[in-house]
Amino acid sequence: MEFQDYFPIWSKLDQTHKANLSSAVFSKKVEKGTVLYNASMDCTSLFLVKSGQLRAYILSEEGREITLYRLFDRDLCLFSASCLMQSIQFEITIEAEKDTELWVIPVRVYQEIKEKSAPLANYTNEIMATRFTEVMWLIEQIMWKSLDKRLASFLIEESAIEGSSVLKITHEGIANHIGSHREVITRMLKYFQNEKMVSLTRGTVEIIDADKLAALC
Amino acid sequence: MEFQDYFPIWSKLDQTHKANLSSAVFSKKVEKGTVLYNASMDCTSLFLVKSGQLRAYILSEEGREITLYRLFDRDLCLFSASCLMQSIQFEITIEAEKDTELWVIPVRVYQEIKEKSAPLANYTNEIMATRFTEVMWLIEQIMWKSLDKRLASFLIEESAIEGSSVLKITHEGIANHIGSHREVITRMLKYFQNEKMVSLTRGTVEIIDADKLAALC
Repeated sequence: MEFQDYFPIWSKLDQTHKANLSSAVFSKKVEKGTVLYNASMDCTSLFLVKSGQLRAYILSEEGREITLYRLFDRDLCLFSASCLMQSIQFEITIEAEKDTELWVIPVRVYQEIKEKSAPLANYTNEIMATRFTEVMWLIEQIMWKSLDKRLASFLIEESAIEGSSVLKITHEGIANHIGSHREVITRMLKYFQNEKMVSLTRGTVEIIDADKLAALC
Repeated sequence: MEFQDYFPIWSKLDQTHKANLSSAVFSKKVEKGTVLYNASMDCTSLFLVKSGQLRAYILSEEGREITLYRLFDRDLCLFSASCLMQSIQFEITIEAEKDTELWVIPVRVYQEIKEKSAPLANYTNEIMATRFTEVMWLIEQIMWKSLDKRLASFLIEESAIEGSSVLKITHEGIANHIGSHREVITRMLKYFQNEKMVSLTRGTVEIIDADKLAALC
Protein backbone atom coordinates (compact mmCIF):
# COMPACT_ATOMS: atom_id res chain seq x y z
CA MET A 1 0.00 0.00 0.00
CA GLU A 2 1.14 3.50 -0.86
CA PHE A 3 1.18 6.61 1.32
CA GLN A 4 -2.07 7.85 -0.21
CA ASP A 5 -3.87 4.74 1.06
CA TYR A 6 -2.94 5.71 4.62
CA PHE A 7 -3.68 9.42 4.35
CA PRO A 8 -7.42 10.03 4.85
CA ILE A 9 -7.72 13.40 3.11
CA TRP A 10 -5.54 12.54 0.12
CA SER A 11 -8.40 13.01 -2.35
CA LYS A 12 -9.03 16.53 -1.06
CA LEU A 13 -5.53 17.78 -1.88
CA ASP A 14 -4.50 19.65 -5.05
CA GLN A 15 -2.41 17.84 -7.65
CA THR A 16 0.64 19.96 -6.78
CA HIS A 17 0.28 19.22 -3.08
CA LYS A 18 -0.14 15.51 -3.78
CA ALA A 19 3.01 15.53 -5.89
CA ASN A 20 4.99 17.42 -3.24
CA LEU A 21 3.90 15.04 -0.49
CA SER A 22 4.51 11.92 -2.59
CA SER A 23 8.04 12.89 -3.44
CA ALA A 24 8.89 13.90 0.16
CA VAL A 25 7.51 11.06 2.29
CA PHE A 26 9.50 7.91 2.93
CA SER A 27 8.99 4.68 4.79
CA LYS A 28 10.94 3.68 7.89
CA LYS A 29 11.08 0.72 10.26
CA VAL A 30 11.96 1.16 13.91
CA GLU A 31 12.44 -1.42 16.62
CA LYS A 32 10.46 -1.59 19.84
CA GLY A 33 12.00 0.81 22.34
CA THR A 34 13.25 3.35 19.77
CA VAL A 35 12.77 6.96 20.89
CA LEU A 36 11.45 8.71 17.80
CA TYR A 37 11.23 12.15 19.33
CA ASN A 38 12.05 14.00 22.53
CA ALA A 39 12.84 17.52 23.68
CA SER A 40 16.51 17.30 22.72
CA MET A 41 15.85 16.27 19.10
CA ASP A 42 15.30 18.55 16.12
CA CYS A 43 11.75 19.05 14.94
CA THR A 44 11.96 17.49 11.48
CA SER A 45 9.11 15.06 10.81
CA LEU A 46 5.56 13.92 11.35
CA PHE A 47 4.98 10.17 11.57
CA LEU A 48 2.06 8.26 10.13
CA VAL A 49 1.86 4.74 11.58
CA LYS A 50 1.64 1.96 8.96
CA SER A 51 1.73 -0.80 11.56
CA GLY A 52 2.90 -1.10 15.13
CA GLN A 53 2.36 1.07 18.17
CA LEU A 54 3.74 4.37 19.49
CA ARG A 55 3.49 5.83 22.97
CA ALA A 56 3.46 9.56 23.74
CA TYR A 57 4.46 10.48 27.28
CA ILE A 58 5.84 13.27 29.42
CA LEU A 59 8.76 13.07 31.82
CA SER A 60 9.26 14.86 35.11
CA GLU A 61 12.62 16.32 36.12
CA GLU A 62 13.07 13.28 38.37
CA GLY A 63 12.49 10.92 35.44
CA ARG A 64 8.92 9.91 36.30
CA GLU A 65 6.69 9.22 33.30
CA ILE A 66 3.02 9.36 32.44
CA THR A 67 1.47 8.09 29.22
CA LEU A 68 -0.59 10.70 27.39
CA TYR A 69 -1.90 8.51 24.57
CA ARG A 70 -0.99 5.71 22.18
CA LEU A 71 -0.93 5.75 18.39
CA PHE A 72 -1.94 2.78 16.27
CA ASP A 73 -2.24 1.91 12.56
CA ARG A 74 -3.09 4.94 10.42
CA ASP A 75 -2.72 7.40 13.31
CA LEU A 76 -0.78 10.58 12.59
CA CYS A 77 1.76 11.73 15.16
CA LEU A 78 1.56 15.51 15.15
CA PHE A 79 3.53 16.51 18.23
CA SER A 80 6.84 15.11 17.03
CA ALA A 81 6.63 18.22 14.87
CA SER A 82 6.03 20.79 17.58
CA CYS A 83 7.61 23.49 15.39
CA LEU A 84 4.60 23.08 13.07
CA MET A 85 2.76 25.62 15.21
CA GLN A 86 4.39 28.33 17.25
CA SER A 87 1.79 27.93 20.00
CA ILE A 88 2.86 24.36 20.80
CA GLN A 89 5.02 25.05 23.84
CA PHE A 90 5.37 21.72 25.56
CA GLU A 91 7.63 18.77 25.11
CA ILE A 92 6.65 15.15 24.82
CA THR A 93 8.52 11.94 24.10
CA ILE A 94 7.44 9.54 21.37
CA GLU A 95 8.62 5.95 21.70
CA ALA A 96 7.92 2.81 19.66
CA GLU A 97 6.11 0.43 22.00
CA LYS A 98 6.26 -2.35 19.40
CA ASP A 99 8.29 -2.84 16.24
CA THR A 100 6.75 -0.16 14.03
CA GLU A 101 6.60 0.80 10.37
CA LEU A 102 6.05 4.46 9.65
CA TRP A 103 5.61 6.97 6.91
CA VAL A 104 7.90 9.90 7.65
CA ILE A 105 6.56 13.28 6.49
CA PRO A 106 9.09 16.13 6.49
CA VAL A 107 7.64 18.94 8.59
CA ARG A 108 8.56 21.68 6.10
CA VAL A 109 6.60 20.01 3.29
CA TYR A 110 3.58 19.40 5.54
CA GLN A 111 3.69 22.98 6.80
CA GLU A 112 3.91 24.54 3.34
CA ILE A 113 0.84 22.63 2.20
CA LYS A 114 -1.06 23.29 5.45
CA GLU A 115 -0.57 27.05 5.04
CA LYS A 116 -2.46 27.00 1.74
CA SER A 117 -4.75 24.00 1.98
CA ALA A 118 -7.92 24.34 4.08
CA PRO A 119 -8.50 20.55 3.97
CA LEU A 120 -5.05 19.82 5.42
CA ALA A 121 -5.36 22.59 8.04
CA ASN A 122 -8.79 21.27 9.06
CA TYR A 123 -7.52 17.69 9.17
CA THR A 124 -4.72 18.91 11.47
CA ASN A 125 -7.39 20.54 13.65
CA GLU A 126 -9.26 17.24 13.96
CA ILE A 127 -6.06 15.37 14.90
CA MET A 128 -5.25 17.94 17.55
CA ALA A 129 -8.83 17.82 18.89
CA THR A 130 -8.52 14.03 19.17
CA ARG A 131 -5.32 14.29 21.21
CA PHE A 132 -6.86 17.11 23.28
CA THR A 133 -9.78 14.83 24.11
CA GLU A 134 -7.40 12.08 25.23
CA VAL A 135 -5.45 14.48 27.41
CA MET A 136 -8.67 15.86 28.96
CA TRP A 137 -9.71 12.29 29.77
CA LEU A 138 -6.34 11.85 31.46
CA ILE A 139 -6.81 14.98 33.60
CA GLU A 140 -10.20 13.72 34.71
CA GLN A 141 -8.67 10.36 35.60
CA ILE A 142 -5.85 11.92 37.58
CA MET A 143 -8.06 14.44 39.35
CA TRP A 144 -11.17 12.52 40.16
CA LYS A 145 -10.33 8.81 40.05
CA SER A 146 -8.52 6.94 42.77
CA LEU A 147 -5.50 4.83 41.88
CA ASP A 148 -7.32 1.46 42.12
CA LYS A 149 -9.78 2.61 39.43
CA ARG A 150 -6.99 3.96 37.22
CA LEU A 151 -4.98 0.77 37.55
CA ALA A 152 -8.03 -1.36 36.73
CA SER A 153 -8.75 0.84 33.66
CA PHE A 154 -5.16 0.55 32.53
CA LEU A 155 -5.14 -3.27 32.80
CA ILE A 156 -8.41 -3.56 30.87
CA GLU A 157 -7.23 -1.17 28.14
CA GLU A 158 -3.87 -2.93 27.88
CA SER A 159 -5.59 -6.31 27.62
CA ALA A 160 -7.78 -4.97 24.78
CA ILE A 161 -4.73 -3.59 22.93
CA GLU A 162 -2.79 -6.84 23.29
CA GLY A 163 -5.81 -9.08 22.69
CA SER A 164 -4.75 -11.21 25.65
CA SER A 165 -5.52 -11.55 29.33
CA VAL A 166 -1.84 -12.21 30.06
CA LEU A 167 0.07 -8.92 30.08
CA LYS A 168 3.84 -8.97 29.86
CA ILE A 169 4.63 -5.84 31.81
CA THR A 170 6.60 -4.99 34.93
CA HIS A 171 5.24 -3.05 37.90
CA GLU A 172 7.74 -0.32 37.02
CA GLY A 173 6.31 -0.25 33.49
CA ILE A 174 2.77 0.15 34.79
CA ALA A 175 3.89 2.93 37.15
CA ASN A 176 5.44 4.76 34.19
CA HIS A 177 2.20 4.55 32.23
CA ILE A 178 -0.06 5.94 34.92
CA GLY A 179 2.41 8.29 36.59
CA SER A 180 2.75 6.43 39.87
CA HIS A 181 5.54 4.68 41.80
CA ARG A 182 6.54 1.01 41.49
CA GLU A 183 5.97 0.31 45.20
CA VAL A 184 2.44 1.72 45.04
CA ILE A 185 1.59 -0.36 41.97
CA THR A 186 2.99 -3.54 43.57
CA ARG A 187 0.86 -2.97 46.66
CA MET A 188 -2.29 -2.40 44.61
CA LEU A 189 -1.66 -5.41 42.35
CA LYS A 190 -1.25 -7.61 45.43
CA TYR A 191 -4.59 -6.33 46.66
CA PHE A 192 -6.11 -7.16 43.23
CA GLN A 193 -4.56 -10.64 43.52
CA ASN A 194 -6.05 -11.18 46.98
CA GLU A 195 -9.41 -10.16 45.54
CA LYS A 196 -8.96 -12.82 42.81
CA MET A 197 -9.03 -10.26 39.98
CA VAL A 198 -5.48 -10.88 38.74
CA SER A 199 -2.75 -13.44 39.10
CA LEU A 200 0.86 -12.28 39.35
CA THR A 201 4.06 -13.96 38.22
CA ARG A 202 7.46 -12.39 37.54
CA GLY A 203 7.05 -10.03 34.60
CA THR A 204 3.38 -10.81 33.94
CA VAL A 205 -0.03 -9.78 35.18
CA GLU A 206 -2.84 -12.14 34.23
CA ILE A 207 -6.41 -10.88 34.38
CA ILE A 208 -8.52 -13.70 35.85
CA ASP A 209 -11.74 -11.82 36.59
CA ALA A 210 -12.23 -9.10 33.96
CA ASP A 211 -15.81 -8.40 35.05
CA LYS A 212 -14.82 -7.70 38.63
CA LEU A 213 -11.96 -5.50 37.41
CA ALA A 214 -14.31 -3.62 35.06
CA ALA A 215 -16.84 -3.13 37.86
CA LEU A 216 -14.13 -1.28 39.78
CA CYS A 217 -13.65 1.38 37.07
CA MET B 1 -13.70 49.46 17.98
CA GLU B 2 -15.21 47.07 15.48
CA PHE B 3 -15.01 43.27 15.36
CA GLN B 4 -12.25 43.41 12.75
CA ASP B 5 -10.02 45.29 15.20
CA TYR B 6 -10.25 42.33 17.59
CA PHE B 7 -9.83 39.56 15.04
CA PRO B 8 -6.12 39.04 14.30
CA ILE B 9 -6.42 37.36 10.89
CA TRP B 10 -9.12 39.65 9.52
CA SER B 11 -6.90 40.94 6.72
CA LYS B 12 -6.24 37.38 5.51
CA LEU B 13 -9.92 36.63 4.88
CA ASP B 14 -11.70 36.90 1.53
CA GLN B 15 -14.15 39.76 0.99
CA THR B 16 -17.12 37.34 1.06
CA HIS B 17 -15.94 35.78 4.31
CA LYS B 18 -15.42 39.20 5.86
CA ALA B 19 -18.95 40.21 4.86
CA ASN B 20 -20.44 36.97 6.24
CA LEU B 21 -18.64 37.37 9.55
CA SER B 22 -19.45 41.06 9.88
CA SER B 23 -23.14 40.53 9.40
CA ALA B 24 -23.29 37.54 11.77
CA VAL B 25 -21.30 38.66 14.82
CA PHE B 26 -22.89 40.68 17.60
CA SER B 27 -21.76 42.22 20.84
CA LYS B 28 -22.95 41.05 24.26
CA LYS B 29 -22.39 42.04 27.88
CA VAL B 30 -22.49 39.47 30.66
CA GLU B 31 -22.23 39.92 34.39
CA LYS B 32 -19.62 38.30 36.58
CA GLY B 33 -20.74 34.77 37.44
CA THR B 34 -22.68 34.15 34.21
CA VAL B 35 -22.22 30.63 32.87
CA LEU B 36 -21.72 31.14 29.14
CA TYR B 37 -21.41 27.48 28.28
CA ASN B 38 -21.67 24.06 29.84
CA ALA B 39 -22.44 20.49 28.83
CA SER B 40 -26.21 20.98 29.00
CA MET B 41 -26.27 23.98 26.62
CA ASP B 42 -26.49 23.93 22.85
CA CYS B 43 -23.33 24.47 20.88
CA THR B 44 -24.15 27.76 19.15
CA SER B 45 -21.34 30.30 19.45
CA LEU B 46 -17.69 31.15 19.81
CA PHE B 47 -16.81 34.08 22.06
CA LEU B 48 -14.14 36.67 21.45
CA VAL B 49 -13.39 38.67 24.60
CA LYS B 50 -13.54 42.46 24.16
CA SER B 51 -12.90 43.16 27.83
CA GLY B 52 -13.26 41.21 31.05
CA GLN B 53 -12.24 37.70 32.02
CA LEU B 54 -13.54 34.17 31.40
CA ARG B 55 -12.65 30.97 33.20
CA ALA B 56 -12.72 27.52 31.61
CA TYR B 57 -13.01 24.62 34.03
CA ILE B 58 -14.11 21.01 34.36
CA LEU B 59 -16.44 19.55 36.96
CA SER B 60 -16.35 16.13 38.58
CA GLU B 61 -19.51 14.13 39.22
CA GLU B 62 -19.26 15.21 42.85
CA GLY B 63 -19.14 18.88 41.84
CA ARG B 64 -15.42 19.43 42.35
CA GLU B 65 -13.84 21.93 39.94
CA ILE B 66 -10.45 22.57 38.42
CA THR B 67 -9.53 25.61 36.33
CA LEU B 68 -8.09 24.74 32.90
CA TYR B 69 -7.27 28.25 31.74
CA ARG B 70 -8.46 31.85 31.72
CA LEU B 71 -9.31 34.04 28.75
CA PHE B 72 -8.58 37.75 28.63
CA ASP B 73 -8.99 40.66 26.20
CA ARG B 74 -8.82 39.54 22.55
CA ASP B 75 -8.76 35.83 23.42
CA LEU B 76 -11.02 33.56 21.40
CA CYS B 77 -13.03 30.94 23.27
CA LEU B 78 -13.11 27.92 20.99
CA PHE B 79 -14.45 25.16 23.22
CA SER B 80 -17.82 26.76 23.81
CA ALA B 81 -18.29 25.54 20.24
CA SER B 82 -17.31 21.91 20.71
CA CYS B 83 -19.49 20.93 17.75
CA LEU B 84 -17.03 22.83 15.55
CA MET B 85 -14.96 19.64 15.33
CA GLN B 86 -16.30 16.15 15.67
CA SER B 87 -13.16 15.04 17.51
CA ILE B 88 -13.80 17.36 20.46
CA GLN B 89 -15.31 14.86 22.87
CA PHE B 90 -15.04 16.51 26.26
CA GLU B 91 -17.15 19.00 28.12
CA ILE B 92 -15.99 22.15 29.83
CA THR B 93 -17.75 25.02 31.55
CA ILE B 94 -17.10 28.64 30.60
CA GLU B 95 -17.95 31.26 33.21
CA ALA B 96 -17.47 35.03 33.33
CA GLU B 97 -15.05 35.70 36.18
CA LYS B 98 -15.55 39.46 35.80
CA ASP B 99 -18.17 41.57 34.05
CA THR B 100 -17.30 40.82 30.44
CA GLU B 101 -18.00 42.23 26.98
CA LEU B 102 -17.87 39.74 24.14
CA TRP B 103 -18.19 39.37 20.44
CA VAL B 104 -20.47 36.41 19.78
CA ILE B 105 -19.64 34.47 16.59
CA PRO B 106 -22.31 31.98 15.45
CA VAL B 107 -20.65 28.58 15.13
CA ARG B 108 -22.24 27.79 11.77
CA VAL B 109 -20.82 30.93 10.15
CA TYR B 110 -17.36 30.30 11.63
CA GLN B 111 -17.45 26.69 10.53
CA GLU B 112 -18.51 27.45 6.95
CA ILE B 113 -15.61 29.86 6.55
CA LYS B 114 -13.12 27.56 8.29
CA GLU B 115 -13.94 24.72 5.87
CA LYS B 116 -12.80 26.86 2.93
CA SER B 117 -10.29 29.29 4.39
CA ALA B 118 -6.81 27.99 5.17
CA PRO B 119 -5.99 31.15 7.19
CA LEU B 120 -9.01 30.64 9.48
CA ALA B 121 -8.35 26.90 9.81
CA ASN B 122 -4.69 27.59 10.67
CA TYR B 123 -5.67 30.31 13.13
CA THR B 124 -7.99 27.79 14.80
CA ASN B 125 -5.03 25.38 14.98
CA GLU B 126 -2.93 27.98 16.76
CA ILE B 127 -5.71 28.71 19.28
CA MET B 128 -6.13 25.02 20.00
CA ALA B 129 -2.35 24.58 20.37
CA THR B 130 -2.32 27.46 22.88
CA ARG B 131 -5.03 25.80 25.00
CA PHE B 132 -3.30 22.44 24.63
CA THR B 133 -0.11 23.99 25.99
CA GLU B 134 -2.01 25.38 29.00
CA VAL B 135 -3.61 22.01 29.70
CA MET B 136 -0.24 20.21 29.40
CA TRP B 137 1.19 22.69 31.91
CA LEU B 138 -1.71 21.82 34.21
CA ILE B 139 -1.03 18.07 33.94
CA GLU B 140 2.61 18.65 34.82
CA GLN B 141 1.55 20.74 37.82
CA ILE B 142 -0.90 18.11 39.05
CA MET B 143 1.44 15.19 38.48
CA TRP B 144 4.79 16.48 39.57
CA LYS B 145 4.21 19.47 41.85
CA SER B 146 3.17 19.26 45.46
CA LEU B 147 0.19 21.26 46.66
CA ASP B 148 2.25 23.95 48.43
CA LYS B 149 4.00 24.78 45.14
CA ARG B 150 0.71 24.79 43.21
CA LEU B 151 -0.95 27.04 45.78
CA ALA B 152 2.01 29.44 45.73
CA SER B 153 1.91 29.52 41.89
CA PHE B 154 -1.82 30.19 41.95
CA LEU B 155 -1.51 33.11 44.42
CA ILE B 156 1.29 34.70 42.39
CA GLU B 157 -0.61 34.29 39.09
CA GLU B 158 -3.81 35.64 40.64
CA SER B 159 -1.95 38.63 42.05
CA ALA B 160 -0.50 39.36 38.59
CA ILE B 161 -3.96 39.15 36.98
CA GLU B 162 -5.55 41.42 39.58
CA GLY B 163 -2.58 43.79 39.78
CA SER B 164 -2.82 43.68 43.57
CA SER B 165 -1.28 41.82 46.49
CA VAL B 166 -4.65 41.67 48.22
CA LEU B 167 -6.75 38.89 46.72
CA LYS B 168 -10.47 38.79 47.37
CA ILE B 169 -11.05 35.08 47.22
CA THR B 170 -12.37 32.40 49.56
CA HIS B 171 -10.55 29.19 50.47
CA GLU B 172 -13.39 27.33 48.71
CA GLY B 173 -12.76 29.45 45.60
CA ILE B 174 -9.05 28.62 45.63
CA ALA B 175 -9.83 24.91 46.08
CA ASN B 176 -12.10 25.07 43.02
CA HIS B 177 -9.35 26.62 40.92
CA ILE B 178 -6.69 24.09 41.73
CA GLY B 179 -8.89 21.04 42.17
CA SER B 180 -8.38 20.58 45.89
CA HIS B 181 -10.57 20.64 49.02
CA ARG B 182 -11.35 23.70 51.15
CA GLU B 183 -9.95 22.13 54.33
CA VAL B 184 -6.64 21.34 52.62
CA ILE B 185 -6.33 24.89 51.28
CA THR B 186 -7.12 26.40 54.70
CA ARG B 187 -4.42 24.28 56.32
CA MET B 188 -1.83 25.23 53.71
CA LEU B 189 -2.70 28.95 53.84
CA LYS B 190 -2.29 28.88 57.64
CA TYR B 191 1.14 27.35 57.13
CA PHE B 192 1.95 30.14 54.62
CA GLN B 193 0.76 32.67 57.23
CA ASN B 194 2.99 31.17 59.94
CA GLU B 195 5.87 31.43 57.49
CA LYS B 196 5.05 35.15 57.00
CA MET B 197 4.33 34.75 53.30
CA VAL B 198 0.65 35.74 53.44
CA SER B 199 -1.75 37.41 55.83
CA LEU B 200 -5.30 36.07 56.10
CA THR B 201 -8.55 37.88 56.88
CA ARG B 202 -12.13 36.76 56.17
CA GLY B 203 -12.50 36.64 52.38
CA THR B 204 -9.01 37.90 51.54
CA VAL B 205 -5.51 36.57 51.17
CA GLU B 206 -2.79 39.23 51.23
CA ILE B 207 0.63 38.39 49.85
CA ILE B 208 3.19 39.92 52.18
CA ASP B 209 6.35 38.20 50.97
CA ALA B 210 6.08 37.59 47.23
CA ASP B 211 9.77 36.62 46.91
CA LYS B 212 9.49 33.87 49.51
CA LEU B 213 6.30 32.64 47.89
CA ALA B 214 7.94 32.66 44.43
CA ALA B 215 10.96 30.79 45.78
CA LEU B 216 8.60 27.99 46.78
CA CYS B 217 7.36 27.43 43.21
